[in-house]
Amino acid sequence: MKQTTDMLLQALTLEEKAGLCAGLNMWMTKGVERLGIPPIHMYDGTNGIRKTNSDDEIGITGENLPATCYPTGSAIGSSWNTDLLHEVGVALGIEGKQMNVELLLGPGINMKRTPLGGRNFEYYSEDPCLSGELGAAFVNGLQSQGVGASVKHFVCNNQEYEKLVTSSEVDERTLREIYLSAFERIVKKADPWTIMCSYNLLNGTYTSENEHLLQDILREEWGYEGVVLSDWTAVNDRIRGLKAGLDIEMPGPAHYNTKAIIEAVGSGKLSEADLDRVVYRILELVCKTTEQSGAAAEHGAKEFHELARRAAAESIVLLKNDNQILPILADKTSSIAVIGRFAKQPRIQGAGSAKVTPTQIDVPLEEIRALAGAGVTLAYADGYPQDDRLDDELIEESVRLAKRADIAVVFVGQPEYAESEMHDLEGIDLPPHQVKLIERICAVQPRCVVVTSSGAALAMRPWAQHVPGIVHAWLTGQGGGRALADILFGRVNPSGKLSESFPVKLSDNPSHKRIRGENGKLYYREGLFVGYRYYDSKEIAPLFPFGHGLSYTTFAYSDLTAVQYGDQVAVSLRLTNTGTRPGKEVVQLYIHDEDCKWVRPEKELKAFAKVELQPGESKDIRFVLEERDFAYYNTKYNKWVAETGYFQLVIGSSSRDIRIRERIHCQFKSEEMTLHKFSLLSEWLSDPIAKSILTDTLTEMNHHVVDQVELSDEFVGFWGDFPTIKVFQMFGQPWFVDRSPDQLIDTLIAQFESSRG
Amino acid sequence: MKQTTDMLLQALTLEEKAGLCAGLNMWMTKGVERLGIPPIHMYDGTNGIRKTNSDDEIGITGENLPATCYPTGSAIGSSWNTDLLHEVGVALGIEGKQMNVELLLGPGINMKRTPLGGRNFEYYSEDPCLSGELGAAFVNGLQSQGVGASVKHFVCNNQEYEKLVTSSEVDERTLREIYLSAFERIVKKADPWTIMCSYNLLNGTYTSENEHLLQDILREEWGYEGVVLSDWTAVNDRIRGLKAGLDIEMPGPAHYNTKAIIEAVGSGKLSEADLDRVVYRILELVCKTTEQSGAAAEHGAKEFHELARRAAAESIVLLKNDNQILPILADKTSSIAVIGRFAKQPRIQGAGSAKVTPTQIDVPLEEIRALAGAGVTLAYADGYPQDDRLDDELIEESVRLAKRADIAVVFVGQPEYAESEMHDLEGIDLPPHQVKLIERICAVQPRCVVVTSSGAALAMRPWAQHVPGIVHAWLTGQGGGRALADILFGRVNPSGKLSESFPVKLSDNPSHKRIRGENGKLYYREGLFVGYRYYDSKEIAPLFPFGHGLSYTTFAYSDLTAVQYGDQVAVSLRLTNTGTRPGKEVVQLYIHDEDCKWVRPEKELKAFAKVELQPGESKDIRFVLEERDFAYYNTKYNKWVAETGYFQLVIGSSSRDIRIRERIHCQFKSEEMTLHKFSLLSEWLSDPIAKSILTDTLTEMNHHVVDQVELSDEFVGFWGDFPTIKVFQMFGQPWFVDRSPDQLIDTLIAQFESSRG
Repeated sequence: MKQTTDMLLQALTLEEKAGLCAGLNMWMTKGVERLGIPPIHMYDGTNGIRKTNSDDEIGITGENLPATCYPTGSAIGSSWNTDLLHEVGVALGIEGKQMNVELLLGPGINMKRTPLGGRNFEYYSEDPCLSGELGAAFVNGLQSQGVGASVKHFVCNNQEYEKLVTSSEVDERTLREIYLSAFERIVKKADPWTIMCSYNLLNGTYTSENEHLLQDILREEWGYEGVVLSDWTAVNDRIRGLKAGLDIEMPGPAHYNTKAIIEAVGSGKLSEADLDRVVYRILELVCKTTEQSGAAAEHGAKEFHELARRAAAESIVLLKNDNQILPILADKTSSIAVIGRFAKQPRIQGAGSAKVTPTQIDVPLEEIRALAGAGVTLAYADGYPQDDRLDDELIEESVRLAKRADIAVVFVGQPEYAESEMHDLEGIDLPPHQVKLIERICAVQPRCVVVTSSGAALAMRPWAQHVPGIVHAWLTGQGGGRALADILFGRVNPSGKLSESFPVKLSDNPSHKRIRGENGKLYYREGLFVGYRYYDSKEIAPLFPFGHGLSYTTFAYSDLTAVQYGDQVAVSLRLTNTGTRPGKEVVQLYIHDEDCKWVRPEKELKAFAKVELQPGESKDIRFVLEERDFAYYNTKYNKWVAETGYFQLVIGSSSRDIRIRERIHCQFKSEEMTLHKFSLLSEWLSDPIAKSILTDTLTEMNHHVVDQVELSDEFVGFWGDFPTIKVFQMFGQPWFVDRSPDQLIDTLIAQFESSRG
Repeated sequence: MKQTTDMLLQALTLEEKAGLCAGLNMWMTKGVERLGIPPIHMYDGTNGIRKTNSDDEIGITGENLPATCYPTGSAIGSSWNTDLLHEVGVALGIEGKQMNVELLLGPGINMKRTPLGGRNFEYYSEDPCLSGELGAAFVNGLQSQGVGASVKHFVCNNQEYEKLVTSSEVDERTLREIYLSAFERIVKKADPWTIMCSYNLLNGTYTSENEHLLQDILREEWGYEGVVLSDWTAVNDRIRGLKAGLDIEMPGPAHYNTKAIIEAVGSGKLSEADLDRVVYRILELVCKTTEQSGAAAEHGAKEFHELARRAAAESIVLLKNDNQILPILADKTSSIAVIGRFAKQPRIQGAGSAKVTPTQIDVPLEEIRALAGAGVTLAYADGYPQDDRLDDELIEESVRLAKRADIAVVFVGQPEYAESEMHDLEGIDLPPHQVKLIERICAVQPRCVVVTSSGAALAMRPWAQHVPGIVHAWLTGQGGGRALADILFGRVNPSGKLSESFPVKLSDNPSHKRIRGENGKLYYREGLFVGYRYYDSKEIAPLFPFGHGLSYTTFAYSDLTAVQYGDQVAVSLRLTNTGTRPGKEVVQLYIHDEDCKWVRPEKELKAFAKVELQPGESKDIRFVLEERDFAYYNTKYNKWVAETGYFQLVIGSSSRDIRIRERIHCQFKSEEMTLHKFSLLSEWLSDPIAKSILTDTLTEMNHHVVDQVELSDEFVGFWGDFPTIKVFQMFGQPWFVDRSPDQLIDTLIAQFESSRG
């Protein structure tokens, strides 16, 4: 392939090269017919393919070509099932091939720093390990079928408000540990064909032309050799972008910027070598899209729909199940009241560029009817109007039906219009009408199950405490109706775990009142403390924590061991299904660093496994952790540092349901102590050589000053945090005649370094 | 004076000028004997004068010359009494004159962003209005006696940890609204003779050489013409500091840096004009110190001690008083158990450079004995050992005494060693021994009053709920013992109000886990949300809120009116003492901005008044608010902006005990709308001229494209937050052949500007 690419590159004129770097229209690049270089066809899609009827239209609001609609990112993120993500990736690859899609513009893996982000429903999680592992599995699946991924949005676009004119101001450690980490995992584990830059600026520079991001980190540190393309219109300065490594500009203006590129090469503003590097990557991408063309397998809409159902079933989370109100035992139930418009018109996805025109839709009410069987009377009421205005008559009707039934299942959720690209949410409470509906129903029907639909965290105060059963159905795509019914009636044992924390109230969240940029700057003030990392450190109990999700069976954890071999730590434990039903558990491995000099989150997810067990069955679960899993990003050395010391391996069924933990002392390479101009007195004293040099010098100084320095415990106790240079400055005042404290400290450091050899 | 200064300046040699800019020893500058220019003598002091026995010693840990020890900053900050601060300033001026102090190195007015700051006890408050008003009153008092102030530490040194090597990373709006605001108030209202720069870096540059801080803001914006001196050894690069306007380096190295200055002038690195500006300011300061010399009034230690008692009495805060357990009625009480070592060895101040050697100390136990009178039996137990190790025998003894008495008064607090310059606190809970002591006593003696001593907020969970009476005695200086006894027995009606929020637990505080810099950077991540601003916005109830403090009488608020005249708003209200004792109330005026485009704190203190009323008496309270009081700092225009719209004037007896509020529409000058390259579609549409230009252009574009743009509600609803240039880029792709979207938007903006005329 390299040979072909090199030959093609040589054959191209400057005009043709420049032309390859931008869209021809909304959804494809320009090829070079003369040389048989085809255009690349790419379409939206995170939870399905959004292919427009014509390549000239953006088609956000209308109907597009029908395609399978899978659970959205936050839903499928709650499956914690990498095999499932791989399978969905494969299926989308097959369907993509059938629809002549060469690049699918997904997955979206941005972190959820706020529950109000308008695109949260598209993204997997608040945790980079979970997002990265799921994303890598998806990309591997997709690309195995010859359809490329475009991992997006790179990076730090975590809200919709003024996203094109706002600079995300993020410190380097937070950037590395939280926002880049999932991208890094996917690049290293799945080598995505493309990465899509985001709309925003990052620390003052558009990501579409940010050299630190696109060059230093993505290409040099991570070794990424694929193509970077722009989010639609995200390019600011085309030439600056090209230099930074932004390969393809979508959709354009292609005509104008092609000329601009030619001129820039002509004037020397852009070197042809820089352009060639970009074109080389684009040609390699073209090769990938053509090489495996036409390999589409013989799967049809039916198989895809079945997969959509399975995916939905793994995504749905059983939040609360007091007195085992679920599953509903159809043979012991004579009547069910199904309340709420979403039972008939389910919310299966969010709005915006990710919105798929589904091939079919499972309707929860119908699926419930089918599974309940003829022996169960089903009553239905809308519960609330389409526009969520208060309508007491609808409530009264619902209450009447609920009271008469054996059990009420109430469908509620964020209204359709609330979750969309381009608009952040205004809150995370249900509409007041729905809250009133639930509370009124609970008052007459204690056997009440609430099914919530939303693409992001919901607050459930005060009603959650009055309801024995809560099922979070996310936005689970076209198969969600059947999946839900399967769970309600126990045909499927729920196994989803929350991919994000559900706070008690909006103001509990880490970025409360800080999601809107101000005059073009948005400070990521919570730093590392996103999601559960925040709730842990602030000692705020979430309503339902990250990783939480109940099952109809129970699991026991035992036999945890951890052993370090070289740079790796092998962890094993035994998991047993102690209940009476088959079920799947998500084993979550967090680490806790006991000894880090700097503040670290209380715990960080580093590995997980979804395990299926029959009743009574046990399995040994094994994880291998790398040095990097113990590391934090140290801005002194600008690299990841794992510090020798004690760590805890914290194993939980959720981030707050810790079942077993083990303490282990890990040995990692340490950095050599260095001294610099401002090293503290305590640092000098911590090294015997440095201490001896310092002591001698102080003795010398004491001959010249009145207020003499003795390194007593009391003195060091008070002045230990003072830089040694300043101790000299403070007490050595009359002594500094011919040399400055700076010169003295330089001499002492040189002495230290040569003494150490 | 100016003439003299000019003449002196001309008479000085370069060497003499350079020599004037640094310390001769620890506590004085070098004068010029030849010209009769005396040195300036300056000594530590925020709550009293710390003058060492010799000018060659720093004397932090030993005994110094006796001087009156007033309540520390956080204590006297709780007086909310500007008259008192003025009076204390005058007294310190008189005492300073007597002790040959020309500059007193205080007051310290840094904001309390964390309850763990080691010097919090030295600072007034978490609120810049309160700190600024109190600081201005103090400085005016002090300087009225011919002793100069040194307002410190300028700026953003809010913790002790590695303070000399840590850059406080603070966004400009937060810097202006929170951290600089109190300094600005004092500069404008009291013109302090000097300002002391801090140890830390601010946004990457040492404050001792920070041009943005010392030049742009302090001198140019605020018009400050006084002297800036360094904190002791805070100078980094002497020449850079001089250029930035750091006038005096303390303590040195004077010899070396004098030569360095001479060389810098010689080499042209420093212009002599720059040096002259600095020397001119120093000469003017010398004039001030000499002009009013020898005017010391005839006050002695006795008068100062009485003032220290009065100051303490105004500072002590009655936090809780269930069932009116206080005041203690001596004639109805036969026995009192006084428990706790602090009753005998009171904590009157913190440690470090602010520690005064007091002239005498009121001992609480003795004062209680005196006021209780012969009819009351007093029992005393230590309660806990000096080192706070658990000693059950001391607890048992205390419980026995408490049980037998009519009432128990328990003295507890932060241990002596916990609060000091150079060391941040490790927590805000009482030592476990003391907590156990309180809980055991409460279990046997429901009539229990706890007296807490600390220089900063304390957490009181879980014991506070079991105790009917809590008095926070701060660190109230040498007169605190008598003041406390006066309050306990009702001789003084308490009138202190918390100058900082007391959270329920440490992790509630806004900078939790974020007070230590990491590799030299400390991000002020809570931004504007310091103190009550944070608890308000996060909806976290503090244990005792900012501004809280009970009285033995009650007050009613009524007749609130607010009227705008020009740029001012006149506010008046009526306050009535509705109880049976004379008392003082602190009326607190906060504003709430209803319409601000950006996030603002829920409320901000803008004015306050301490008012004394006899039982049944009423007074009209009047405030005049300026436009600035309604403004926030807008980083787009780099200035303070008050936006026309609705505000609420919120009047409280504390920040959470709001008694009355009034809504007012204020009219302020507005900024003219401007359009720029990235102005949003919604911004273009908000102006009729811009809208018409845009509509015409879109019509033109639609002739050239397939996916045409109609500005329907649906379209604008989705794309409104998109920059107009990007809308062109998205939909106008085939249309941009000979011009770029940038050129188009430039043309349209020019058209808009010329159409507007």
